[in-house]
Amino acid sequence: MSNSTQKIKAGILGASGYTGAEAMRLLLRHPNVELTLLTADRKAGLSVEEVYPHLGGYGLPDMISVKDADWNSVDVVFCGLPHGTTQEIIATLPATVKVIDLSADFRLRNAGTYAEWYGHKHMAMTLQAGAVYGLTEFNRDAVKDARLVACPGCYPTATLIALLPLVSAGLVDPQDLVIDAKSGLTGAGRGLKQNTLFSEAGEGLSPYSVAKHRHAPEIEQEVALSAGLSDADVRVNFVPHLVPMSRGELVTCHVRLAAGKTVGELRAEYAKIFQNEPFVRLLKEGDMPQTQMVRGSNNCVLNVFEDRIPGRATVIAAIDNLVKGSSGQAVQNMNLMFGFDETLGLEQVALFP
Amino acid sequence: MSNSTQKIKAGILGASGYTGAEAMRLLLRHPNVELTLLTADRKAGLSVEEVYPHLGGYGLPDMISVKDADWNSVDVVFCGLPHGTTQEIIATLPATVKVIDLSADFRLRNAGTYAEWYGHKHMAMTLQAGAVYGLTEFNRDAVKDARLVACPGCYPTATLIALLPLVSAGLVDPQDLVIDAKSGLTGAGRGLKQNTLFSEAGEGLSPYSVAKHRHAPEIEQEVALSAGLSDADVRVNFVPHLVPMSRGELVTCHVRLAAGKTVGELRAEYAKIFQNEPFVRLLKEGDMPQTQMVRGSNNCVLNVFEDRIPGRATVIAAIDNLVKGSSGQAVQNMNLMFGFDETLGLEQVALFP
Amino acid sequence: MSNSTQKIKAGILGASGYTGAEAMRLLLRHPNVELTLLTADRKAGLSVEEVYPHLGGYGLPDMISVKDADWNSVDVVFCGLPHGTTQEIIATLPATVKVIDLSADFRLRNAGTYAEWYGHKHMAMTLQAGAVYGLTEFNRDAVKDARLVACPGCYPTATLIALLPLVSAGLVDPQDLVIDAKSGLTGAGRGLKQNTLFSEAGEGLSPYSVAKHRHAPEIEQEVALSAGLSDADVRVNFVPHLVPMSRGELVTCHVRLAAGKTVGELRAEYAKIFQNEPFVRLLKEGDMPQTQMVRGSNNCVLNVFEDRIPGRATVIAAIDNLVKGSSGQAVQNMNLMFGFDETLGLEQVALFP
Amino acid sequence: MSNSTQKIKAGILGASGYTGAEAMRLLLRHPNVELTLLTADRKAGLSVEEVYPHLGGYGLPDMISVKDADWNSVDVVFCGLPHGTTQEIIATLPATVKVIDLSADFRLRNAGTYAEWYGHKHMAMTLQAGAVYGLTEFNRDAVKDARLVACPGCYPTATLIALLPLVSAGLVDPQDLVIDAKSGLTGAGRGLKQNTLFSEAGEGLSPYSVAKHRHAPEIEQEVALSAGLSDADVRVNFVPHLVPMSRGELVTCHVRLAAGKTVGELRAEYAKIFQNEPFVRLLKEGDMPQTQMVRGSNNCVLNVFEDRIPGRATVIAAIDNLVKGSSGQAVQNMNLMFGFDETLGLEQVALFP
Repeated sequence: MSNSTQKIKAGILGASGYTGAEAMRLLLRHPNVELTLLTADRKAGLSVEEVYPHLGGYGLPDMISVKDADWNSVDVVFCGLPHGTTQEIIATLPATVKVIDLSADFRLRNAGTYAEWYGHKHMAMTLQAGAVYGLTEFNRDAVKDARLVACPGCYPTATLIALLPLVSAGLVDPQDLVIDAKSGLTGAGRGLKQNTLFSEAGEGLSPYSVAKHRHAPEIEQEVALSAGLSDADVRVNFVPHLVPMSRGELVTCHVRLAAGKTVGELRAEYAKIFQNEPFVRLLKEGDMPQTQMVRGSNNCVLNVFEDRIPGRATVIAAIDNLVKGSSGQAVQNMNLMFGFDETLGLEQVALFP
Repeated sequence: MSNSTQKIKAGILGASGYTGAEAMRLLLRHPNVELTLLTADRKAGLSVEEVYPHLGGYGLPDMISVKDADWNSVDVVFCGLPHGTTQEIIATLPATVKVIDLSADFRLRNAGTYAEWYGHKHMAMTLQAGAVYGLTEFNRDAVKDARLVACPGCYPTATLIALLPLVSAGLVDPQDLVIDAKSGLTGAGRGLKQNTLFSEAGEGLSPYSVAKHRHAPEIEQEVALSAGLSDADVRVNFVPHLVPMSRGELVTCHVRLAAGKTVGELRAEYAKIFQNEPFVRLLKEGDMPQTQMVRGSNNCVLNVFEDRIPGRATVIAAIDNLVKGSSGQAVQNMNLMFGFDETLGLEQVALFP
Repeated sequence: MSNSTQKIKAGILGASGYTGAEAMRLLLRHPNVELTLLTADRKAGLSVEEVYPHLGGYGLPDMISVKDADWNSVDVVFCGLPHGTTQEIIATLPATVKVIDLSADFRLRNAGTYAEWYGHKHMAMTLQAGAVYGLTEFNRDAVKDARLVACPGCYPTATLIALLPLVSAGLVDPQDLVIDAKSGLTGAGRGLKQNTLFSEAGEGLSPYSVAKHRHAPEIEQEVALSAGLSDADVRVNFVPHLVPMSRGELVTCHVRLAAGKTVGELRAEYAKIFQNEPFVRLLKEGDMPQTQMVRGSNNCVLNVFEDRIPGRATVIAAIDNLVKGSSGQAVQNMNLMFGFDETLGLEQVALFP
Repeated sequence: MSNSTQKIKAGILGASGYTGAEAMRLLLRHPNVELTLLTADRKAGLSVEEVYPHLGGYGLPDMISVKDADWNSVDVVFCGLPHGTTQEIIATLPATVKVIDLSADFRLRNAGTYAEWYGHKHMAMTLQAGAVYGLTEFNRDAVKDARLVACPGCYPTATLIALLPLVSAGLVDPQDLVIDAKSGLTGAGRGLKQNTLFSEAGEGLSPYSVAKHRHAPEIEQEVALSAGLSDADVRVNFVPHLVPMSRGELVTCHVRLAAGKTVGELRAEYAKIFQNEPFVRLLKEGDMPQTQMVRGSNNCVLNVFEDRIPGRATVIAAIDNLVKGSSGQAVQNMNLMFGFDETLGLEQVALFP
């Protein structure tokens, strides 16, 4: 597609957040995409350079208010708006516009679960019914045909890549999953919060939302689906921690093997499932997944380890929360939705050191 | 003790490492201690300022080789030597010198376990028989009378403070303990290793020694003892991670409640056990232990949380690995061994931010 | 002073900021001080633990609104309020209360300069006339007798300790001073600003307020005074940078030697001036001042170096911006004002690593 | 060049260092380059993944010893060997192999200056005579025709981009240049040094090599050349600092304006010189260059500011030391040497946050 008139036109709603900035970074270099619309209500009227100096000089359009958007100017929108808001806006879009949602609004299929965790009734359950859960590696065919893709949360992305192959193959007990998760500060967004100031978060490690994080029900939903159980039958232990780094996410999953299963069988299952995946890499036996291996890239690295407790194992996966955990996976889904090569615009090698 | 002639004389063996530096920092301000001996074989002949610029100007003695030490000049030695080495040197000390060992040499009571994890036969089992495990809060009386105290490792310190009250009271299953541990880089020492370079460890999170860390058998030994089980009957899951910060250690312990027990009962047990402890603080319900709360201090903060999986709970404890996890606890033990107030020299408030 | 009834009573106005927290940390361990009053208007009603978890458990009074303060309950107040506000409140205090101001309100002696840089007329010039500039090492006698001490800004503290001895002795040209300054993020305070978020400031270096920082006229005032010049005759180049660390400040001063002077003479002057100073340390020739040497302590380390350009030299000084650059120097001044040993409560050795 | 047989073949000598890793990262995605040779004497026999886990999975050749290299297999080599070594090896290469040297070996044109700063006689002065100084923006034509390009040091790159336009146009005094430079830790390389450990460098700021850094004579050489002065007539003040971040470099240049010149004229000169440069961006008036704006990219951002001292100005420039300061500029030069579009393989947008 060397002719720019053939490029699809993309918009980013909520472009002033970190996921918006990351989508801009990736799409600026995507050969088949032109960025034609950027909305950011509180930054409306500002240039991209004023909001994100590192994105100055690339000729991007200025930020406008979402109410001023011309929806006919876009083929696809990436939606990084706060939950709730998203539902209302997406419901008004013309059906010709494909939607890749980075918010939590269409991830939970059960209206009651949504209301319980997000504090208000879901306002677009009809749309929800047609939404595809965009964990690309496990939902590729549905994503291809979707009009609305709900991209998974960052923690669920890493966690489910690690757990779904095992749950699906009956190798681990889906009702005894302990997920100890760690994230860099960008996971908390660009909003101003005291606990994300450098002087508060630096040189420190903070658990938060223990057993109360909204990504827990999302993980449970997908684990239950994979295990053939009802949502109510799966509860996971999920403890997230804030780590003093900007990017990166690592989940340490402590699992119980199904009767008679071995770590070797887990490893073999991963090798089989992920052998042709462009973005998931099973490390050599004994090698440690680290967030440093994937910074800035759309890759996920993982491995599985024997536990000292007989019958248990430890699975560890690492991603860049802003790429595979958010905007990168969104672009991966967009590629599928438009029939592009799945890796287009996502070839960047990890930045280390 | 206003008269300096009444001060005890202390030496630090292996003063050039981080635990040595931290012992110097604390003892320099201890009203009852005079630092009279500093050994560091590879730095012998250097001034303290040359090895640790921040300790210049305090009139400390120069570093000498351990073979040149005059043992009659000290009442107590803090021993921060590499394992193995320690045993040989301590075995030669006059009986009048009390020994506070910061290495791993006298922590494991079982000679076979020691040999298995440290790769060589223990060379001073007689001394080992008399060594007291210096987890102060749980071993206070024995420490008072000890001549040789084996200070716990940093991870075991935080972990056992969190787990022993629960195991001891039969509130959790000692055979299903999942310990997800995180440490700052000083835990890896001052030795030159590629993975502890700033550019390698910064902006990154790395698990290491999964199920193979030497602190696992130490934790198992003490849990088994507390539970009234044999060592062989307790195996813990122990997964440590390197976090991009210099100091601080946080353990997230995922535990299974004993039949019929509740998180409220765990909380009540902590409240009872730690109510008069000067250095252990149970946080208010829901408050998160963070390493930022204890940086530079000898404090341990902890809390317990409901899990989403019925019958499970999460216990989190944070310490400064170089203080309560090492040199601070060593000074705490020294205070007991010499009949001083247990908090002497350890009053420093945490440094935040 | 073993009897607590003999302790002086101290209050902190604006206790919820970083300088307030640091004053609490230091005064909690000061043997002659009892903290009886903490004000923080927006945090009024909260416990210290709720505002600063690391200060929980020490029995400090709750935060109250400044309008509810009982001024008879204090002998001295540390004032960490925003500029402007400070003047109004301090003007209402009973004359019996000594005031140590950490704000910028009483640092500039010239009303016009104040108005120019702070954007409003000074509201308490009478008080200003009696204020003593609290750069302790250079103003010791005046501080002893002061009722109101204006503590210098953090940058001026490090800069003036480095420059005043040279200017005063005519060793450098006071009209050609280039000050390249670097500070950790706590220098920007606890207020919520986008540029001090971890994800914005981490892994990055940002100059700011080039030639427009309010500490420039403060430095000029004191240099001019020391050089016997009028304020208008001294302009310094002052370029501050934000460095991705929480604490620490380093100033690199590029100076032009007075005709015929040598770096050796600068060094000798420092040696003479600072030989008995408890908190200022001239390093050995060639040794580099680093912020790591002073973290958490009230120390200043400095050194002077030959330049490659003939007739120029480089002077470098490092302090902890929250201690010697703020609350530590405030306590140092308090000690003088009450006739205590100048080092009381400030003996803490630097925390490294 | 869609046909891989048309790709040029490139080798990296000294591939195990950070500049080698960065060259691999960039060249892996260069459409016209195939990496066919990687040497690393101490890592010979290891796979790339073993040396740099983030580069695993891309099918790169294993590391071999430089003595085993088949020089016929490459069209170009990037040379990241230690100085001295480089000269000997490059001297043995067939003339058909183009050489892009990342070491300091061919930067200094004067044999005496080289010997003085590097401690040994230059061993390949004949080659030196033909070497082109690869500061691309100022030497484009010579680079195109070069067989051997000596890439500038990281500090000289940022400094000279900022200063050469001003010196060349006679806008500033070339004999009164004060360069206060700051770099992230990767600038110190992957070698094991105590001062680059995370626990030593983190939360700290360290000046080093004050007036003794090897990049000073390199800057002087180019400034002198640009000013039409002899090398001996230009001495610059150069004070580098280590900043606790992995990547990024910022130089704050304090300059004296030539008589009658204004900051506006400096700004206009930059605007003219850099208007069509793909990698150099003059920021809007008042905007601050920050290393965060260029991380991972080949960009340089700069700006100029009024000083408070009449007749002086401050110029600030920021680059990523591993990209524009090293391997990125090397690739930029390679593109010119082979007639490729200068930006090929270097289009990556900066990674922020």
